[in-house]
Formats: sequence, C-alpha cells, structure tokens
Amino acid sequence: MSAIVGSAAVLTGESAGPYSTDWRGRYSGKALAVVLPSDTKQVAEVVKLCAAQRIAIVPQGGNTSLCGGSVPLSQGKQIVLNLSRMNRIRAFDSINYSMTVEAGCKLADVREAAEKNNRFFPLGLTATQKYCEIGGNLSTNAGGINVLRYGNARDLVLGLEVVLPDGRIWKGLRSLRKDNSGYDLKHLFIGAEGTLGIITAAVLKLFPRPQSTATACVAVGDAEVAVRLLAHVRANCGDTLSSFEIISRSCLDLVYRHIPDTDEPFVRQYEYYLLIQLGDVLPSQLDGALRTTLQSFGPGVLEQAVTSDADTAEKWWKLRKNISEAQKREGVSIKHDISVPVSRVADFIARADTALHNTFPDIRIVAFGHMGDGNVHYNVSMPGAEQNKDFIAQQEGAVNKLVYTVVRELNGSISAEHGLGQLKRDTIRDYKDPLELELMRNIKQTLDPLGLMNPGKVI
Amino acid sequence: MSAIVGSAAVLTGESAGPYSTDWRGRYSGKALAVVLPSDTKQVAEVVKLCAAQRIAIVPQGGNTSLCGGSVPLSQGKQIVLNLSRMNRIRAFDSINYSMTVEAGCKLADVREAAEKNNRFFPLGLTATQKYCEIGGNLSTNAGGINVLRYGNARDLVLGLEVVLPDGRIWKGLRSLRKDNSGYDLKHLFIGAEGTLGIITAAVLKLFPRPQSTATACVAVGDAEVAVRLLAHVRANCGDTLSSFEIISRSCLDLVYRHIPDTDEPFVRQYEYYLLIQLGDVLPSQLDGALRTTLQSFGPGVLEQAVTSDADTAEKWWKLRKNISEAQKREGVSIKHDISVPVSRVADFIARADTALHNTFPDIRIVAFGHMGDGNVHYNVSMPGAEQNKDFIAQQEGAVNKLVYTVVRELNGSISAEHGLGQLKRDTIRDYKDPLELELMRNIKQTLDPLGLMNPGKVI
Repeated sequence: MSAIVGSAAVLTGESAGPYSTDWRGRYSGKALAVVLPSDTKQVAEVVKLCAAQRIAIVPQGGNTSLCGGSVPLSQGKQIVLNLSRMNRIRAFDSINYSMTVEAGCKLADVREAAEKNNRFFPLGLTATQKYCEIGGNLSTNAGGINVLRYGNARDLVLGLEVVLPDGRIWKGLRSLRKDNSGYDLKHLFIGAEGTLGIITAAVLKLFPRPQSTATACVAVGDAEVAVRLLAHVRANCGDTLSSFEIISRSCLDLVYRHIPDTDEPFVRQYEYYLLIQLGDVLPSQLDGALRTTLQSFGPGVLEQAVTSDADTAEKWWKLRKNISEAQKREGVSIKHDISVPVSRVADFIARADTALHNTFPDIRIVAFGHMGDGNVHYNVSMPGAEQNKDFIAQQEGAVNKLVYTVVRELNGSISAEHGLGQLKRDTIRDYKDPLELELMRNIKQTLDPLGLMNPGKVI
Repeated sequence: MSAIVGSAAVLTGESAGPYSTDWRGRYSGKALAVVLPSDTKQVAEVVKLCAAQRIAIVPQGGNTSLCGGSVPLSQGKQIVLNLSRMNRIRAFDSINYSMTVEAGCKLADVREAAEKNNRFFPLGLTATQKYCEIGGNLSTNAGGINVLRYGNARDLVLGLEVVLPDGRIWKGLRSLRKDNSGYDLKHLFIGAEGTLGIITAAVLKLFPRPQSTATACVAVGDAEVAVRLLAHVRANCGDTLSSFEIISRSCLDLVYRHIPDTDEPFVRQYEYYLLIQLGDVLPSQLDGALRTTLQSFGPGVLEQAVTSDADTAEKWWKLRKNISEAQKREGVSIKHDISVPVSRVADFIARADTALHNTFPDIRIVAFGHMGDGNVHYNVSMPGAEQNKDFIAQQEGAVNKLVYTVVRELNGSISAEHGLGQLKRDTIRDYKDPLELELMRNIKQTLDPLGLMNPGKVI
C-alpha cells in the first residue's frame, strides 16, 4: 500500500481508530489499515492490489453514515479506503449548470463553490453538511430538506467516475442532460453504499439560485390536516415549494429542554407544527402567495405565521434542525427512517402510534421529518434513562417489528434516506420481495464476484 | 399462445404485417406471431412459454421507435409482444401526486387523465404523443420538449412492474419519493429498450398544473449567442423556464414549403430562431419577466417578441412542431439525434457544419432541437431528390463519421433521446468506452442469460 499512496497515507494501530468508529459512536470495527489515496489512479492501484490479495475494502467519506455503512467490521481484515484527500473541484461549467467534483469534497464546500458562481446545488442535510462528503452522499443517495423540489442525490448527478472492484476505472464523467446510448450504469452505483465499486468523482447538476423566499410556520391538530395542506400548497404554489417539514409536539419539548435560545413559535401549544418554505428565482411576492394559499385552505389550520424575513425563518428552522441534537442529549432512542406514499403519512403515524401505545403504554414517540417526501423520522424511547436503557436492550426488535409492519401495510420502505448499511442489512430480508433480493444478489455477483466491496453491508 | 391470450389475440400472416414495420416505414421485419396479452399475468405466461421454447420476444408499444427498436428482425423467428391492450389506469393519487398506469396507455391519454385531476404529467413529444405508449416511453427513456424543467422519462417514474426474461414478475410498483433500501433496479429497465425485461406498468410522478405561461420568439445571428442567452434566461427566470428550442433558417424554409398556414415570425429573416417558454403555477406576470430578461441580455438578440396569448404562442410552436413532418415530405435525409454539454452546442454546430461543407460543398443542413438539453437534431441531405438518393446510398457512413467525430470531441452522445435500437447498435461500439460495453453485456447476461429479450437491439 505504501508504495502506492506513500507511507504517510497508510494508517494502522491507534491512528486508524477514528476511522473505525462512526459519527454517532454506535458502530465500532477494526481496520487492517486506513488508506488515503490522493487521486483516482491511486484508488485504482489500491483496489487492484486488494483484489489480488483478496482483501476486503470499506470505502469511506466523511464517515457520517447513520447505519454503520462506512466503518469496517470487527475482525480486522478489511481496509478502510478513505477518499477525503480527493477533494478537488475539477471543473465548473456555469452555462451547462454543472460541476465536476471529487468524492472527498465536503457537501458544504460543494454548495459554497456553486454559490460563488451564482449557481445552486440543492442537496441539503441539516445535521452533517459540514462533515459529510459528496462521494458518500451519492453512494447512499442522500435525501434531506430539498427533495420535494429537487429530488434525491441520485437526481442531481449527470455522470460518474467509478473504480470497479477489479481496479479498472469506469470513466463515466459525462455532463449531458440527455444520453440514451445504453444501460444507465450510474444509477447502479448511486445508492449502492460502496458495495459495487468506489465512486471517485461526479458531474453534478446545478440550478439557478433562488432570490426570493417565504417561510411559514403552521400549527395543526393532527397529521391528516397536514397531508391535505401539503397537496393544497403544492397545487397553488407549484415548484416554488421546496420544503414541507412536520414536527410533533414531543420534538419541541426536547429542543426547548436541551438547546439554548429556542422559543415557542406561538403563545398556545399545538400537537403538530409544519415548516413550509417557498423559493423562486423570479422576484415574486412569495409571502403574499403563501399567506393567500394558507387562508384558502379552509378549516384545519389552527394558527399560522408567514415571513420573508430570513432571521425569523431561521428561528423556526432552528427548532427543526436541532431535533436530532436534542434527542442525542436526551439519551439513546430507537430510530426509524421510514417512508410511505405522501398520502399515507397520517395513516402511518396514527397506526404506528396506536400499535406502540397498545404494547408499551409509557412509550414516548418523537416524530418529525420530510413530510413532502413521505419520509418520517419516527424515534421511540422510554422517559427515564434507566428504564429506557433496559427497554432498548430488551424490546428493540419488538418495536421495530410493530413499526415496520405498519410500513409494509402502507407499501412503504423501512429505509427512506439513510440506507441499509449494517443496521438494516438483515432486517431488510423480511420486508423486501425475495425476487428483488435475488436480482440484487445477482448484480452484486456480476460486478463484484470476489465479494470484496464493503462486505457485511446492504446485501 | 392462444391458450394463454385467446386465439383472437394471436396474429399471424398478413394481419401481423402492420406490427412488423415501424412508424416511419424504415424498418421491416417478419414476426413468427404477434401476441396481444391483456394483463400482466398473461405477459408472464407468454414469456415463460417463450423461455421454455427458446423463442425470442420483441416487446412493442405504439411502435413509434425512430431506431427500429420495436420491430422484429427479418428471419421470422421472433414474436412481437404488443402491450397495447394493457391500457388501464390502475390508480390515481392526487395527494401523492402519482398515478399507476399500464404499459399500453397512450402518452396523450396519460397526460389527459392527469389534467382531469388537476395534475400535470410533463412528458411531451411533439410528433408522436397520440400514438406512442407509456411502456415504450419508459423503455426508451423518452425526452421531448419539457426535459429542461422536468427531466427525461426516467426522472418521472416512482416504481415499475416488470416481467423478467424467465417470466417471473418483479412487483416494484412503489409510489415512494424516497426509498434507500437496496440497489435501484428500476433505472436498469428504463431505457433498456426491452432487452432486459418487459415493463408492464409504472407509477408516474405528477406535478402541479402550470397556470400562467409566457412564450418568446427570438431571432439571433448564431448559435453562440443562443447558448449564452439560455444561461441568462435560466439564471433570471429559474425553474419557470420549461422549453428552450433552437430552429435554424433551413428548417423554416422547409416548413413554409410543405405546411400550410405557417408564417415568418418577423418581417426580416434571420439565421436562427429560439422558442422560449416559461410556465408557473403561481399567477405570475411571466411575459413581463421574460421581456425584462431578454432586454437585460445585451447585444446579440436581433429581434424578439413575447406573448402570453396562447394562439400567438401556438403559431410559433407550429413552426417547431412541423419540422419533422416538413422534412418527411421533402424526402429522406440522414438524421442525427446527438447531445453535447449545453455550453458546447454552438461549437458542435460550427464544427459539424464546417466538416460537412468541406467534404460535401452542396450539402443542406437542417438543425433544430432541444437546446436547453444540449440535444440537437442535425439532419443532412442534398437539394435534388435524385442527387440526394444517391448521396444517402453512398455517403451515409461517411456523413455519420464526420458528425459523430465532432460529438466525440465534445464529450457528447450519438444518441440523445431516441435510443439505439437497430439503427445505432453497431455504431455505438465505435463511440462508447469498451469497459462500459463490457459492463452492459455482463448485465444483459445476468438478467437475460438466454438472450431472448429483443435480440439484435442495443447490445
């Protein structure tokens, strides 16, 4: 390895430690070595060497996976191939609205480079934007707060460069909006969590920068009203609608307890809050449009505030963006990242709440998420720390089963945006069509016959 | 076969004829039989029977392929499996902005069903909308006039139902906006032109219906100005920009000659015309925004007209929509459906024009297309009918080589939106990375080991 990347770029022993534990500290493994190549050719050489010696590879970016996807297993037989040193922006084309970036570019840096050139890269992750890297974002098909308008990470890619499991380089760095000249290979590697090859660079789609925005904070009594309101806002505000987030009362209670300088949006308290954001490149009066739209909805909206002032909007967003952090400080919980059709979000919450309360009367449910995408983060725990610890140790499987059964009834997915990683690798087998699993295994076998790419994850 | 679909749904001899020749009359083959199943189960049974008897299958929708993708080869050994009888809309979910349709639904009917429910399905094909079917649109990843804003057919799909080459049914009809629970299989079948399986149904993404529109007709002296103007309009009008089409002078000459009731947009004549369309769900003053944007561009726009009147816009669109028809009446031509990065469209036209004129001084070039997607339809012929006939017979290969060499220099694609079919199956081998072709062959071998799905097409 040292002959390929230089000895300073091969870490072993203690210095490999930070790369073997994930961001949340939930998964810890042991790496044979951590290798940090500086360009695609080095990646290819490392992979070739590993293939020859049958050494498994864990591709790693910012290591912010929430599913243990980017850390090695515990046997100490896998190398971590960390791409953070590959952080160049190779090309920027304002007229084509595209940029070519290496896998190790941090998401925040990609967004900033776009803005500096009066363009917009819409992938927005509330918690990890400064740490996660674009290669990992694409490998996990990251979601976030702008999917409603701009799509998932997969929808933001024009081309890829990938080092295949045998060390050959697929030079698919096209920057075309249309290309129907064969099978679309890029979509195989995007979202495969490094199990089919290593994404080393990508051509990203850019967008015009929104110039006007308006944000609403809306209180509703139940999620069913929220579902109908979403359809109403979309029909009336169209593509200016970029975010539609739902926050349950229990989320706010945690945020107020643990995060300083956070306030109730209204004097009265309500069961659910919605954060709705519009954006437009045209100099539109979006606050007026949003207000009119909310007023024309009919009964169900209990209270509302609309602003075009960035500071006021940021105060509301602070509540949403700090839910994960507040929950972390409160203690561990059983987390679910599920999706259902947008029209079934209220059904999901009602059915899952009932199923859990029937079995565990004291349970505390913290539900929030990207309602515009049908994506709910549905986290459960017990109120007391000690009680909660025992509860999770004993009942995690039972809780998952109750929640995922509802997801299945509603034709949803048990992993909406976080991926499978180690966390859901086994569970998915109970919820996915065996035929689809068979197709996945066949593709894995075809592209990675030695099984050296991120084994123990996804499949 | 008759035992599966009924004898009336198996056509042989003369009645099979219309299904064995494509829409343009360019490709004719011979079918062993034409089979018209009425539901997915019948498709699966037919495919199973074919697999057992080693009979190859040509999946067919509206048979409007421009590359001979949907007709059988000439040996009379392949059946045509036509999906036109499967034309039900299975489900419509206004709140989820999605609809579930069978493969045989005509595109125009899908669009109409969406509109009736106050929703918009954006796939728009100028020439074939009333005849082509959604299964074929997805199998070829169709493009059209709204890609700039809404993406290709591939981007408009949430889920698929596919009959695999062994007759098993993959039930991937999910209607989720986010699903990261394994490899994305749907993108393999979309754009595979029926070589990996048969798409029998799909869940389509819908959008809010635009309420306000504005259209501009703009004259420019060369394509380079058009490229810069596109970036300027996108930056100022953002996502309201849904079409940006370019039309060369030679196109208009053909249209005026062959299509009644067509007029010059301006008194003076120019080298290139642009059709720019904005649409918005909000009640915006788009004509004003478009006018201001054009005025702020600086020198280069020679003449312009902006309207929010539908009849005026339709008169301009008539010029664009009838180019193919006018050219058909004028006689055959050598057609190219190429794409380059949007920023290189003017380079492409300049270099290809020069290369062709140097070799064939009398050549007539008809260039038009979806400039917003970097997609140029670049058709060439000789002025006289007899001269042209000989020219095409003798020089088609030489012309293609000159044009495709420029495409390669600019990192473009020789098939932007029409696919490969029979037309470009051999040619693509000269222009695609051998590694990518190898990956495609491996995937084909994995999914269709007997090679019975649309052999002789794509790969």
